[in-house]
Amino acid sequence: RVDGVRLLQRLQDLGQFGALEGGGTNRLALSDADKAGRDWTVQQMRDLGMAVQVDAIGNVVGTCAGMQDLPPVMTGSHIDTVRTGGLYDGNYGVMAGLEVVATLRAAGVRTRRPIQVAFFTNEEGARFQPDMMGSLVMVGGMPLQAALATQAVDNAATVGDELARIGYAGSAPVGAPVVDSFVELHIEQGPVLEQQDRLIGVVQGVQGICWMQLRFTGTSNHAGTTPMALRHDAGMCAMRCAAFIHNLVVRYGGSQLGTVGGLQLKPNLINVIAQEAVMTVDLRNTQAAPLRQAQAEVLAFANRIASENGVQCEHRQLADFEPVDFDADLVDCVEQHAHALGLSTLRMPSGAGHDAQMLARVCPSAMVFVPSRQGLSHNVHEHTDPDQLVHGANVLLQVLLHQANR
Amino acid sequence: RVDGVRLLQRLQDLGQFGALEGGGTNRLALSDADKAGRDWTVQQMRDLGMAVQVDAIGNVVGTCAGMQDLPPVMTGSHIDTVRTGGLYDGNYGVMAGLEVVATLRAAGVRTRRPIQVAFFTNEEGARFQPDMMGSLVMVGGMPLQAALATQAVDNAATVGDELARIGYAGSAPVGAPVVDSFVELHIEQGPVLEQQDRLIGVVQGVQGICWMQLRFTGTSNHAGTTPMALRHDAGMCAMRCAAFIHNLVVRYGGSQLGTVGGLQLKPNLINVIAQEAVMTVDLRNTQAAPLRQAQAEVLAFANRIASENGVQCEHRQLADFEPVDFDADLVDCVEQHAHALGLSTLRMPSGAGHDAQMLARVCPSAMVFVPSRQGLSHNVHEHTDPDQLVHGANVLLQVLLHQANR
Ligand SMILES: NC(=O)NCCC(=O)O
Ligand SMILES: NC(=O)NCCC(=O)O
Repeated sequence: RVDGVRLLQRLQDLGQFGALEGGGTNRLALSDADKAGRDWTVQQMRDLGMAVQVDAIGNVVGTCAGMQDLPPVMTGSHIDTVRTGGLYDGNYGVMAGLEVVATLRAAGVRTRRPIQVAFFTNEEGARFQPDMMGSLVMVGGMPLQAALATQAVDNAATVGDELARIGYAGSAPVGAPVVDSFVELHIEQGPVLEQQDRLIGVVQGVQGICWMQLRFTGTSNHAGTTPMALRHDAGMCAMRCAAFIHNLVVRYGGSQLGTVGGLQLKPNLINVIAQEAVMTVDLRNTQAAPLRQAQAEVLAFANRIASENGVQCEHRQLADFEPVDFDADLVDCVEQHAHALGLSTLRMPSGAGHDAQMLARVCPSAMVFVPSRQGLSHNVHEHTDPDQLVHGANVLLQVLLHQANR
Repeated sequence: RVDGVRLLQRLQDLGQFGALEGGGTNRLALSDADKAGRDWTVQQMRDLGMAVQVDAIGNVVGTCAGMQDLPPVMTGSHIDTVRTGGLYDGNYGVMAGLEVVATLRAAGVRTRRPIQVAFFTNEEGARFQPDMMGSLVMVGGMPLQAALATQAVDNAATVGDELARIGYAGSAPVGAPVVDSFVELHIEQGPVLEQQDRLIGVVQGVQGICWMQLRFTGTSNHAGTTPMALRHDAGMCAMRCAAFIHNLVVRYGGSQLGTVGGLQLKPNLINVIAQEAVMTVDLRNTQAAPLRQAQAEVLAFANRIASENGVQCEHRQLADFEPVDFDADLVDCVEQHAHALGLSTLRMPSGAGHDAQMLARVCPSAMVFVPSRQGLSHNVHEHTDPDQLVHGANVLLQVLLHQANR
């Protein structure tokens, strides 16, 4: 069993980097707060006797040698957060990984295979897009140069410059990691486990994610003097597109999700028709075919409404990830160890994107979820009960032991 | 006839205060640029021998004494602009008023009644709402204290504080001005005169204006993990409300206009459901009844969609002006003098709000329009040909002479 107090203490300590007044964390990827959190976590790894490597996209991997020189079993997650994030999203998986290592060390247990604990760069995608960038580059899913050249959403810096600035442009190569298997522990970030009163989510896969930016460019003009028929209203195009997305989601039903979380109008004044509207679109579905279809419908509608209004529409694909199925054997293994610990489980898909979906491209992968109170996440009030956090870490311990001793 | 070169020079000179690189003007009400423009314009009035008075809401009135101590004939407009405004909106009416005075002075003409040239505080409503604030307070349509307490849209200052700061909290009383009649010269700000190839718009009235702010407050949460049915998406409520306004305008047809020029989402991130959306609504109609109806429908829809989504909706009425009919005799007078000058005319309503609609509450009022190229206004590319500007000023000269010598 892990030491719950020690686990919770590490989560508290890490939460101090980028802490927001009144609770929660702002530790955007590659910010000063991220650097401080990274430095502290690296020191924790060293204190646990792990060998630490930083790769060219800033992913950090700590290794506990095994008895044999075999491909390692890896766990981990991310320590970057959104601007108004909680203490657990990502951080929990990394701190639980360290707690597993600390527990094995204290018990004098040495596994057959090496165990690695990783934290990946820019999982959130709040500052740089796409999300899961570090793990995506690690598995060869995005060229390193393209990732390093990615501009921040405020166009104020690139990934490469920021990595160099905070001292995490490492030398380990990316593209073809050698990993036996990967297990990620994470908070659910949704309401399902709580509603169904289960302690452990046995994650079968991750839904597909399609992120787009649509930029409508029209003509600003006077709201009182410009007849409706002569307008080139970029804002109205964007907002009607958002309403179309709402209707599409209702029409598709099932697991289709659609969110317009970002919209910026220019000049954003009450009596001036907007000349520019930049809008984000987040579409998700556990099924690949309807997700593709939804994306195509949204793009077609955006282009049609723009051309009907004499407005330009530019589309940028910010992320495009197919649904992922995790490894059936590893998923079973998670379920069996949770049951062996007497914990109730639920098989479920992940609504959020995770680094495990990238690792799944190169090795058997799976995830373990614990409940999120009221399903809140990406919110400073994100919360999981301490005993639930400890249960999840114990499942991780057992699964890693099993995998590393195979 | 006025001196066209002198008129254009004054417009150029005034355009330097708050000039934007690449053209246009940013002279938001009560800003430093507004103060500079005011100081310069007051000096112009003094140089023309006018007596200058500043009232408690910062309206500035310059007076040329008449031969008799009768109620004055007033002209004027405003010199504040939107953030990305042109050189002519408002400014033209004030500079043309000064040019009329200069012309009469140069010709040694003294009218029977006094002639006044005014510029009114915060006509645009871009920084403080409602628009036409100075003229509204002058005619007793808004209590002085309420106007002085009005917060800027960025909540950074009040009208009263800013008036004091720039030295325009004057001592002349407001509420019951004594004015014989009021004539305002203005650019059309719309495309009608250009499309119909007429030089002078004979303005019969101003359409009704309803400005609202709707604030939707929901709950921020994760875009990937939160089922559609459990969301409290403030942004989607606002954007669907905007689409409803679009449909309403199509359904009403006729002279109904609807614009959503402003929308602010929080936290405004691609994968976070918006917890707050603050949206502006600008509804206009030349007819009072459908405008009221449209306002009621929008409010009912906003409240219904909010309650269906477990979102709060707060409504603030930022401006609410009934349609205004100008004085029939004064409108005829404008038309006759334009024809006497050989200028083509069109009778038309005004799409934009103007100070003349406030003065119409206390005295016979009317307006003269000149064409706007491509109907552009509230845009740095706003343009009227110099000879059209001079034609309009000559009509103003004749109408003021006629009124002041009655
Ligand atoms: N786990 C998580 O919040 N990932 C961020 C990417 C997403 O929006 O799913
Ligand atoms: N003339 C003018 O642009 N007034 C501002 C108020 C409005 O939006 O009509």
